[in-house]
Amino acid sequence: MVRVVIVGGGAAGASAAARARRLDPNAEVVLIERGSMITHAPCGMPYAIGGIVKSHEDLMTYRPEEFEKERNIRVLTRAAVLDVDVDKRMVAVQRGSSVEKIQWDKLVIATGAKPLVPKIPGVDLKGVLTMRHPDEVPEIKGHLEKAKTVAVVGGGYIGVEMAEVLLEMGKKVLLFEMADQLLPATLDPDTAAIVAEEMKSRGVELHLGEKVVELAGTGHVSKVVTEKGEYNVDEVILATGVKPDVDLALKAGAKLGETGAVYVNEYMETTVPDVYAAGDVVEKTHRLTGRRVWIPLAPTANKEGQVAGGNAVRGRVLKFPGVVGTAVTKFYNLYIARTGLSEREASQLGLKTQSALIKARTKAHYMPGAETVHMKLIAEESTGRILGAQVLGRSQIVAAYVDIVAVAAERGYTVSDMFFADIGYMPDTAPVWHPLIVAARVLSRGKL
Amino acid sequence: MVRVVIVGGGAAGASAAARARRLDPNAEVVLIERGSMITHAPCGMPYAIGGIVKSHEDLMTYRPEEFEKERNIRVLTRAAVLDVDVDKRMVAVQRGSSVEKIQWDKLVIATGAKPLVPKIPGVDLKGVLTMRHPDEVPEIKGHLEKAKTVAVVGGGYIGVEMAEVLLEMGKKVLLFEMADQLLPATLDPDTAAIVAEEMKSRGVELHLGEKVVELAGTGHVSKVVTEKGEYNVDEVILATGVKPDVDLALKAGAKLGETGAVYVNEYMETTVPDVYAAGDVVEKTHRLTGRRVWIPLAPTANKEGQVAGGNAVRGRVLKFPGVVGTAVTKFYNLYIARTGLSEREASQLGLKTQSALIKARTKAHYMPGAETVHMKLIAEESTGRILGAQVLGRSQIVAAYVDIVAVAAERGYTVSDMFFADIGYMPDTAPVWHPLIVAARVLSRGKL
Repeated sequence: MVRVVIVGGGAAGASAAARARRLDPNAEVVLIERGSMITHAPCGMPYAIGGIVKSHEDLMTYRPEEFEKERNIRVLTRAAVLDVDVDKRMVAVQRGSSVEKIQWDKLVIATGAKPLVPKIPGVDLKGVLTMRHPDEVPEIKGHLEKAKTVAVVGGGYIGVEMAEVLLEMGKKVLLFEMADQLLPATLDPDTAAIVAEEMKSRGVELHLGEKVVELAGTGHVSKVVTEKGEYNVDEVILATGVKPDVDLALKAGAKLGETGAVYVNEYMETTVPDVYAAGDVVEKTHRLTGRRVWIPLAPTANKEGQVAGGNAVRGRVLKFPGVVGTAVTKFYNLYIARTGLSEREASQLGLKTQSALIKARTKAHYMPGAETVHMKLIAEESTGRILGAQVLGRSQIVAAYVDIVAVAAERGYTVSDMFFADIGYMPDTAPVWHPLIVAARVLSRGKL
Repeated sequence: MVRVVIVGGGAAGASAAARARRLDPNAEVVLIERGSMITHAPCGMPYAIGGIVKSHEDLMTYRPEEFEKERNIRVLTRAAVLDVDVDKRMVAVQRGSSVEKIQWDKLVIATGAKPLVPKIPGVDLKGVLTMRHPDEVPEIKGHLEKAKTVAVVGGGYIGVEMAEVLLEMGKKVLLFEMADQLLPATLDPDTAAIVAEEMKSRGVELHLGEKVVELAGTGHVSKVVTEKGEYNVDEVILATGVKPDVDLALKAGAKLGETGAVYVNEYMETTVPDVYAAGDVVEKTHRLTGRRVWIPLAPTANKEGQVAGGNAVRGRVLKFPGVVGTAVTKFYNLYIARTGLSEREASQLGLKTQSALIKARTKAHYMPGAETVHMKLIAEESTGRILGAQVLGRSQIVAAYVDIVAVAAERGYTVSDMFFADIGYMPDTAPVWHPLIVAARVLSRGKL
């Protein structure tokens, strides 16, 4: 009987546990989670803070009891793994004041990511909030309750989503981003400008290209200090990025990759025998470039967990092929999706790009309810190979437009292939010339 | 100076004309159209009949005058091509009472499709309506105005869409389909049953597996007679399919293909030198099977027209690669999309299939506004190759789910490839396990 211990009850860990159990009904499967929940969705935190989701516990897909009873997985919540001994195949787990040693034959590290807190004065003040785990939602809500003015530091996904939620809570919102655009890691300046416009029109006081150098206050934060000015605030949301939580992996002797996240091969094996890792703690292969990247996202974590859990009990039965760089966020009803490489990323890799940014609609011109879509399609100049897309629009469907490109780019579609893709049409679902087809045509520079 | 004559001002013809003009500013381009409009969208006819689209003229993208002035294309509307002389490179065109002979160096036949009228008694009665051209909308509206009970004969796309429109106009609707399911050409029985359920719940009196054998009445239709019964009606919509309008192509000596539509190669050349054909009049290559099929749809027509028009003035500059079988319709807010092969089609080709039909949602379980999605994914049993998908749901996004599969299937995705596709996620655009990923997992029969 194989003993599989999984550390981390989020997407990757829970998925690994479920998979190990399913493939080996005789395995002993233990899932260890620091917080009170498993299968929790940190991606839903903004909406739980804002009250769109009633309780943070709704962010769970399964309760620990369900995993225990229905799947026969031992679940330890509020349990911290203090140490790991690879030679003795043991983890030391603290719950409350007691420490338990748990044996394993296979260990899966799914410790996720943690907020990257900038090293500036004042980050430890009360009222400076980070977001990592749904357990924190009630406390964050409590902090925000009486606040009138809230600063969001960081214009990435969490920053953008929190800006919406805070406005809806009736707060005055100041958003600071040191880059001169929003979503600098994922969008190019042209598409990011559309998001900025939308934010301003909704009332966010946007400070782009403005680095926060200090958070000030007596006990509780009361001021954001940037290179350019000082701003009175009641609370601060620090959304300055995340980093892989590699502490346990390092204790196990696992090597980190070039990105600083845990290195794993396509079987989700670390460099330490019988130790697997999956989810936000590991780096991934980018399928368009072959390079190692660190893109921590829940759907990837789920699949990596599935692979790690299966391989832990069965040996190399599944391979995780990597990611294409698909990601989605939204600000109110402006959905913002992207895949592949941005022009900036491509340029950093020495690829010369061509792009088309078009404005189109989600339905035939004569149908009511059509929404505007901004579609940017990016190709390699020399080959016409599709490298990526950035799509924004007031319809959930733009997220799926990007999924089409994700599959197309992964399979080497050229601009011409995209133009000739058999994308469906009826007047109420798309224009007869679909935004993607039009973008391909424009990008062909007259060839199509 | 090359003279290009295009017969048919719909999707394929207008697209060919625009493309020929763009690639050769010196060409003489003549577009001949039987009706009053060009770039018209017959797909929008139900919504113009129902008043969702105010005027049938809104179904035009460009007015003839715009094509003439802005693109320098000579447009002849209400013009019938009586004959074609390939040796003399001439067409005889009748407008009103005068006949004009027009010379061409390249001829593009884009005569489209016409309703397939069943050979049963009574189809010529007044009040028996077919739908082909937006020009007919005012007349059809006039007919329907006073009708209380309307029979729709045929449960294909037009039948389904007209059933909604007629209900919204306050009519009692009887729908007759001789097959024992709706949408028999495109859906399998399991997914078609979901459409039938929806139709019944909205009040359509559905007669499946019931062949209409006669339309009866004195001058005006008043009765539908089937093998099973007789039904009093005020008007009848004949939506029993379409066939390619090959008359002109035959006059030109072009060969028809195995499907009965005009044969063209990938350059959209017919078997007659300098005579091209595009759109609903031609058969296409199915990219998943390599077989010739006749699937008449506007987006395909547009692209074929583009290829034909470009090649007519420039020689073989573009190839049309064929279709994957993507199509979309809707009944109220139930969107119905499909691509690739149905299980029935696959079976007819001797392919053994496996399929999964799952019920999923369009958003994370905790987000408001999620809609149910029925997703059927079909793969070849021996190879796991994705063959097709049928997706139904109360959100426009299901159409795009099918587009993802269209691209994936075209590039040989297996069930495993689909599972590992980098499909995007945020709580408001998809569940973290996307319906497509879940369907792939279920379809893997435990392998994923």
